[in-house]
Amino acid sequence: MIAIKNILLLNNFEEPQKCKKSDILIENNLITKICNAGDLKIPEGATIIDGTKKAIMPGLINTHTHIPMTIFRGVADDLPLMDWLGNHIWPLEAKLDEEIIHAGTMLGCMEMIKTGTVAFNDMYFFTDSIIKAVESVNMRCTLSYGLIDLCDEEKRESEMNSQKDVLNSLEKAHNKNELINAAVGPHAPYTCSAELLQHAHDLAKEHNVPMNIHMNETEDEIKQIKEKTGLRPFEFLNSLGVFDDINVVAAHCVHVSENEMKILKDKNIYVSHNPLSNLKLGSGIAPIPTYLKNNINVTLGTDGCASNNNLNLFESIKACATIHKGVQQDSTVVKVSEVLNMATKNASKALNYNSGEIKEGMWADLVILDLKNPTLIPNKNIVSHLAYSFNGVVETVIINGKIVLEDGKMTTMDEDKVYEKAEEAYLNLVN
Amino acid sequence: MIAIKNILLLNNFEEPQKCKKSDILIENNLITKICNAGDLKIPEGATIIDGTKKAIMPGLINTHTHIPMTIFRGVADDLPLMDWLGNHIWPLEAKLDEEIIHAGTMLGCMEMIKTGTVAFNDMYFFTDSIIKAVESVNMRCTLSYGLIDLCDEEKRESEMNSQKDVLNSLEKAHNKNELINAAVGPHAPYTCSAELLQHAHDLAKEHNVPMNIHMNETEDEIKQIKEKTGLRPFEFLNSLGVFDDINVVAAHCVHVSENEMKILKDKNIYVSHNPLSNLKLGSGIAPIPTYLKNNINVTLGTDGCASNNNLNLFESIKACATIHKGVQQDSTVVKVSEVLNMATKNASKALNYNSGEIKEGMWADLVILDLKNPTLIPNKNIVSHLAYSFNGVVETVIINGKIVLEDGKMTTMDEDKVYEKAEEAYLNLVN
Repeated sequence: MIAIKNILLLNNFEEPQKCKKSDILIENNLITKICNAGDLKIPEGATIIDGTKKAIMPGLINTHTHIPMTIFRGVADDLPLMDWLGNHIWPLEAKLDEEIIHAGTMLGCMEMIKTGTVAFNDMYFFTDSIIKAVESVNMRCTLSYGLIDLCDEEKRESEMNSQKDVLNSLEKAHNKNELINAAVGPHAPYTCSAELLQHAHDLAKEHNVPMNIHMNETEDEIKQIKEKTGLRPFEFLNSLGVFDDINVVAAHCVHVSENEMKILKDKNIYVSHNPLSNLKLGSGIAPIPTYLKNNINVTLGTDGCASNNNLNLFESIKACATIHKGVQQDSTVVKVSEVLNMATKNASKALNYNSGEIKEGMWADLVILDLKNPTLIPNKNIVSHLAYSFNGVVETVIINGKIVLEDGKMTTMDEDKVYEKAEEAYLNLVN
Repeated sequence: MIAIKNILLLNNFEEPQKCKKSDILIENNLITKICNAGDLKIPEGATIIDGTKKAIMPGLINTHTHIPMTIFRGVADDLPLMDWLGNHIWPLEAKLDEEIIHAGTMLGCMEMIKTGTVAFNDMYFFTDSIIKAVESVNMRCTLSYGLIDLCDEEKRESEMNSQKDVLNSLEKAHNKNELINAAVGPHAPYTCSAELLQHAHDLAKEHNVPMNIHMNETEDEIKQIKEKTGLRPFEFLNSLGVFDDINVVAAHCVHVSENEMKILKDKNIYVSHNPLSNLKLGSGIAPIPTYLKNNINVTLGTDGCASNNNLNLFESIKACATIHKGVQQDSTVVKVSEVLNMATKNASKALNYNSGEIKEGMWADLVILDLKNPTLIPNKNIVSHLAYSFNGVVETVIINGKIVLEDGKMTTMDEDKVYEKAEEAYLNLVN
């Protein structure tokens, strides 16, 4: 049990003036009681957190990561996309092993937790190694294996088998530890055959898990699909039934036609907007204000550290809250509450979580901020500061009812050892 | 004297692989010796800093602030420009007093120092109060009084007199403490008459100080000048001789014609690029890649906290390094070294400082980073991390040879008191 006393409860981004000092009780993995500050009867044996001069918010949920790539941070920047991929990223990925994956995942989990992220939606390989790391950290995640067949039939067979094995591992892991969740991850329309995409869809539906896919990131890939099929990517996948009856998290959605937007809306697809990756790689700027106007579900992601180069979701929040205003020369588009909802409750819906808000009965995935931080002062407009000013350095993080960060220090890992292992892994990778 | 031993010296952004472990000696306010790690003979009485697992970089220089406005953080967001100014910012500015200005300046200095900024170029009112605060903090600055006459002759007279008084104060302050520097600050072409602009120019030339001015921030103001004079703002001011024989720091330069770009180049004008303010206020996106191609001097600014909403120049560095790639859909424009130079040596030139690089004989305005920070790991590509990954939380800051931040704590102010005074000032302002 954890009792948090006298803390500013940031549970209303639309009407921040209604946020007030409260007491909160956490039992097992749930928020079981929220009341006015001073009103909570503290149960015997509860761990007490004094919330004076602190605020509590729903933990952030990052809907697009490749977490082992945290080891790739800074390895290659400012290059043309194909040079970057072909001469830097892919050759390094060919050298990955379980140890490097584990080291990158531990470093990534640490960075996310220290910047207020409690859960992430990942696509990569070596899933068992990722599971092992995330379990030890006590972080929530939805993991998918990146399916790629490049329209080769033999490769498709082996990918389908791998996918089944990975889903098995994930479901076993979930039964042991509910923090680990499964998704199916066909990489993208330009790297998957129609058969593989349909197979992935059927598997997601059968196992009742979301699909995680890259969509419409660059103009080039759209052109490629159009040449091959006569359709734009969303149109093509929709014609295959890939979006039917499942939750789909579509990463990027930078270049989307009016007709594709209708599909996004009709099929209730969740966009994972990755503003900083899209900028850094020169992919472009997703039409988020138009998505919002059309009531399309938008969530936020950082993408992997090869293309951002960090996992601080507060940076993506600020990027999303500012970029579209600049591009449209309209300071009223993408409001504070909209962007904070993207990073919390919209993402929770996308991944079928029971979090993203602070309410009785919801998972205790919570983040506590020390209000004695220059970027949060004056303390009167904290909700605005979360979007525009806060540097992301959080004080305490609770995931599934367990304190994983306390006073800025990880409780579930030896930080120095994680740094050391990361350095070792990097050297193994580049040498 | 300060001796820094065995520290990774980040003094070559163009060829980061040449950065190596070094020893550094600081005597009085200057860097007097740089040598290979282990080679420095430490003079008796020197304060010794162990630089193991640390890196040192030139302190950042923020070329556009309104520092007392740090108190305005979060006061109004997501509004149309004229509503924001007329109904929120101006009414609050009318209520300012010396105490509020002092409180905002102290908070702003703290935030800047804690995020690696050692100097700033400011335009505001109540200059004496700002001087008092900055002197107590031991921070470097160039201060200008914001001249505005709205073409009213009586107002012009009084502004000219105020300007002379302020220049006097600043020159007195400079003689006492060389950290304080003067500039002349005609606010903008749309708020100043031709006479006031020329007067400001003559004063800057006479006193051998830079001019600080807002230029071409929005399409609207350009239209206004064009209607009045038949010329675009840079053309108009150039016709008045306003750019002759002085250093000019022109903030924003978002919308600039080809002919105006020629003036920027010919007159060696320093652009202060404020990417986050320009985005948040919906002003637009400055053509930085074109400026770079034309060898125009670009520096970086945050603008005030009413329009950013923080003073973390590392955020502006990342914004500048990513936005233009996205807008141009070209990942090769605005390289790491270019953007880091903007925030250091270009800014130093603009303000006639002797800093922005780490060299013997230069001012000891330096920033030390603890490399045990997840956003700086792996440690192999630190220069890239400065632009793309680092969260800005620095460990130690030295300004003019004096340690002002040590292990993340300010040595020249009582942080809790600054927070308290800032909260008080905010309440006085809004109530």
